[in-house]
Amino acid sequence: MKKTTIDFVAKKIAPYIHKTPVLTSTQLNEMVGATLFFKCENFQKMGAFKIRGASNALLHLTDEEKAKGVVTHSSGNFAQAVSLAAKNLGIKAYIVMPSSAPKVKQQAVAGYGGEITICEPTLKAREETAQKIVAKKGATFLHPSNQIEVILGNATAAKELLEEQPNLDVILAPVGGGGLIAGTALSTHFYGKNCITIGAEPFEVDDAYRSLQSGKIETNETTNTIADGLCTNLGDVNFPIIQDHVSEIIRITEEEIVAALKLIWTRLKIICEPSCAVPFAAVLREKEKFADKKVGIIITGGNVDLGGLPF
Amino acid sequence: MKKTTIDFVAKKIAPYIHKTPVLTSTQLNEMVGATLFFKCENFQKMGAFKIRGASNALLHLTDEEKAKGVVTHSSGNFAQAVSLAAKNLGIKAYIVMPSSAPKVKQQAVAGYGGEITICEPTLKAREETAQKIVAKKGATFLHPSNQIEVILGNATAAKELLEEQPNLDVILAPVGGGGLIAGTALSTHFYGKNCITIGAEPFEVDDAYRSLQSGKIETNETTNTIADGLCTNLGDVNFPIIQDHVSEIIRITEEEIVAALKLIWTRLKIICEPSCAVPFAAVLREKEKFADKKVGIIITGGNVDLGGLPF
Repeated sequence: MKKTTIDFVAKKIAPYIHKTPVLTSTQLNEMVGATLFFKCENFQKMGAFKIRGASNALLHLTDEEKAKGVVTHSSGNFAQAVSLAAKNLGIKAYIVMPSSAPKVKQQAVAGYGGEITICEPTLKAREETAQKIVAKKGATFLHPSNQIEVILGNATAAKELLEEQPNLDVILAPVGGGGLIAGTALSTHFYGKNCITIGAEPFEVDDAYRSLQSGKIETNETTNTIADGLCTNLGDVNFPIIQDHVSEIIRITEEEIVAALKLIWTRLKIICEPSCAVPFAAVLREKEKFADKKVGIIITGGNVDLGGLPF
Repeated sequence: MKKTTIDFVAKKIAPYIHKTPVLTSTQLNEMVGATLFFKCENFQKMGAFKIRGASNALLHLTDEEKAKGVVTHSSGNFAQAVSLAAKNLGIKAYIVMPSSAPKVKQQAVAGYGGEITICEPTLKAREETAQKIVAKKGATFLHPSNQIEVILGNATAAKELLEEQPNLDVILAPVGGGGLIAGTALSTHFYGKNCITIGAEPFEVDDAYRSLQSGKIETNETTNTIADGLCTNLGDVNFPIIQDHVSEIIRITEEEIVAALKLIWTRLKIICEPSCAVPFAAVLREKEKFADKKVGIIITGGNVDLGGLPF
């Protein structure tokens, strides 16, 4: 892996993504005793950083592969990201979604032109259904987090943040499947000046924390967390990167996630997913660690169901 | 009035404000058939554009006036803006608030160091209480919208927007007391290239629309609107500017405001006040007028009570 690889990826995907703004809040800075820079990927196209990795993975395909289309299984942002990236590039996208996926997410995927196949809401059914499409159509399978092209695409968010704030001491990102934290850690390594990467994850799904302890990929027995984007496990592609370049993973209680989420909504005035609040909750939880530091935080996405709004 | 006056104001207040980001949304563009640029003053310091006008008004005071402090009456954003601007400049701020003002707003004012005097929730009581403080303390009264220094400070939001998007065809802002639309119209006049200013206001409080028709400042009999920031009337300072430089005022129903607000929250992923949705609702209402145009919209503030959030 070289720095120039990420430079190249950033140039390639530039036409298909937003350069998202970085927000600050004097009140939040005073509250934590550090200077915080929030990289707002909730304002990204389709509402999350995932369009970065999806775009890069699709741009990496051969013409022959492009002609046969791509397939993924997802109930969330990656389904939308692949659908939009494929639409942008004139590629067919087959999206396997569990029958439990919210109608609003199915509609979003369909709106971007993704061809949806509904399956039973189990990982086994999702994988089998996707593999059937691979077999039948010759489509290329895309993994939402455990694929180097996806990781390198994701890396461009932290790259942009460091271009805007070159003197950050630390960048935090949430840890789900590991694709974002691995990409973030690579950019911090290549573009930061003595900058480190810290992951954050709920106690309820602390598989990545335990994986770093044990040296092998751990799984979660249960997934009782409001941070529904962080329930997945690391993979064999991103885990070695995380082992090499992530300094530590801080774990957060559910109460801390909710408190941090409320602060972000009310003080930053942005709408973001519960998962996004996890890194900020980590800073609140371990204030002394971040005292007087310049801290970057990746706000990952904003696709929240606002059906319950009071108006 | 000269362009250089606004240039000077922008330089003076720069240390006390954020240069706020401009957001775009492909989905919203496709929905309206125009290219929209949202100037996000909900991310402004204290959460609204009002810090611009308040800062300029305070910077305009003589040393003697500064020493005696300032007074205003407000239940909303201007109270917070004056309190924060005064704190930044080491000036005493006396804030008259009606007893009906939400506790959360009283706390925000107190948090910025404003000295609160509670009065009966009538305009008469507010004005009398403020005048007593003027008489007793020698403090300078600041008006939230009908004062040229406030108008010129507000003008800097549209100035920044035009610096980032010089080829806008039109800028829309909501019309409440007239201080924002007047400032916006001045900047559009001085910094735009064939750019016009359009105001937007609820049918329920269409005093500005009627004022432009009749040629004199009209008032509202009732104020049954969700856009609680737009219930006030124009003043003798801003009305002539509006007459000279605002092309028209588009009126919006309450249902249209709510629909536009939901679109902004869900598609732009930002938290903004109901008043902010009024100009976007105007674009949705009169799509043909804005077809294929480059349209700037001032998102005025984000101080919403999120007590009813579903988490």
